[in-house]
Amino acid sequence: MAADETFVPAWKFSTEMEVRDYELDAQAIVNNGVYFGYFEHCRHKYLLSKGFDFTALHAEGIDPIVVHADIEFKRSLRSMDAFVVNLDWREEGRFRLQFIQEIRLKSDNSLVASARITGAILRNGRPAPVEVFTSRLRDQAT
Amino acid sequence: MAADETFVPAWKFSTEMEVRDYELDAQAIVNNGVYFGYFEHCRHKYLLSKGFDFTALHAEGIDPIVVHADIEFKRSLRSMDAFVVNLDWREEGRFRLQFIQEIRLKSDNSLVASARITGAILRNGRPAPVEVFTSRLRDQAT
Amino acid sequence: MAADETFVPAWKFSTEMEVRDYELDAQAIVNNGVYFGYFEHCRHKYLLSKGFDFTALHAEGIDPIVVHADIEFKRSLRSMDAFVVNLDWREEGRFRLQFIQEIRLKSDNSLVASARITGAILRNGRPAPVEVFTSRLRDQAT
Amino acid sequence: MAADETFVPAWKFSTEMEVRDYELDAQAIVNNGVYFGYFEHCRHKYLLSKGFDFTALHAEGIDPIVVHADIEFKRSLRSMDAFVVNLDWREEGRFRLQFIQEIRLKSDNSLVASARITGAILRNGRPAPVEVFTSRLRDQAT
Repeated sequence: MAADETFVPAWKFSTEMEVRDYELDAQAIVNNGVYFGYFEHCRHKYLLSKGFDFTALHAEGIDPIVVHADIEFKRSLRSMDAFVVNLDWREEGRFRLQFIQEIRLKSDNSLVASARITGAILRNGRPAPVEVFTSRLRDQAT
Repeated sequence: MAADETFVPAWKFSTEMEVRDYELDAQAIVNNGVYFGYFEHCRHKYLLSKGFDFTALHAEGIDPIVVHADIEFKRSLRSMDAFVVNLDWREEGRFRLQFIQEIRLKSDNSLVASARITGAILRNGRPAPVEVFTSRLRDQAT
Repeated sequence: MAADETFVPAWKFSTEMEVRDYELDAQAIVNNGVYFGYFEHCRHKYLLSKGFDFTALHAEGIDPIVVHADIEFKRSLRSMDAFVVNLDWREEGRFRLQFIQEIRLKSDNSLVASARITGAILRNGRPAPVEVFTSRLRDQAT
Repeated sequence: MAADETFVPAWKFSTEMEVRDYELDAQAIVNNGVYFGYFEHCRHKYLLSKGFDFTALHAEGIDPIVVHADIEFKRSLRSMDAFVVNLDWREEGRFRLQFIQEIRLKSDNSLVASARITGAILRNGRPAPVEVFTSRLRDQAT
């Protein structure tokens, strides 16, 4: 296991994806903005597996949002690459939840990108404690 | 001028854009990954204004890439919002160039997002000094 | 004026856009799917200019949707190309509205793509007559 | 089997995908332009399975392009929907290849969208016969 992830004993969630050619840009590598989508898809699948449905939440006036993103790009994904997106999270005070994520090539497990994505929760447009999320995430994590 | 930009006496480049509805997600706000694209478009327009054409560079084996992105999301862009993307840069050692960028609503100049996007240059797939870029960026900046 | 548009005496609406590099794919041309977005942005700007706000309509349970798209690709858009999207429309029975659209390069007015995009209206998920739209589109078109 | 596909005895290729939330728009359904990407991904996977690699082809000066797209949208894909993209093709004269494609919900096999996407081949920017593709597609189809 690489040094950069020794602080993570095990990922809480992982999902596999593969590059689609329309995600490449003229450099023939996946455009940087697309990684954000890969990370988001993994987060939403994880949250859905815990019973949090973004569309349903939005209809109730609850919108999880991203307030900060820090992404390190280590190597590029190319046409049809298969890869894994991993996820862990930790609370950051009462109002923030930080997702620790990484993307690894499926073929050789090499690190493609690592990210810290910080989320917050809006209830009818105002910040709400993340406890309503984290309590359930912890409960079902056993 | 807001406190958060007092360190920047003047932006080196600015460009105006407007939200397109297909950039919104189910929360009816611009999806976070799209901001990457807004920031990138501003960088590419700036570099093109200095004579750097990404497609031509790629054909020569020179690929500017993003190695790190740090984005703070302050408020959301919504349908048809007009906004300005600003850009400044500074060298970060021999091999890296950091772009300082922000997005502001055109209507009231409020801060939407600020970013530090760090770039590097690959020549035939290997890191090359950024001097070839920065010398020309400085020259024509007078 | 090219033969293909002689049936259109004048466009009802036009808007200018420019290619963003992240819209290119590995062939260094704008990916075909992006044209859909260009055409959509023009339609939404037109409808907004007539008082139809998609986000507000959606909140009222009214969703204009696309039921059919026919697009002819004549030439490719490339990095930073400036182009114009034109729009006309006609009714197609009680429940459908056909948008006739095209994209032309700004530099030489050459035809890039032409489209017939057929829309319908859902009210609480069920088809509704387009008259509520077309009556207002005609009124203000004078 | 639905009447609309009786002319197709069996699909030549199929691939499964799932909706990612960033592909939804403010109507909480997959944006129409994204379907184009779904269809493209299926075509590229099919062609790759027959030995045609778009990035490698582009490097050789050979660019398969889309010249016409006709898409019928039957129902909308929503958050996290799993779906199948099917593909068949037929020659359309010497210089065109028509892909017949459809998207079906995995859960109940209902038709989401059907398409006829017509492709051509550019060799160093000039039209080339599709025979170089179709001969190999037929050979390996046994």
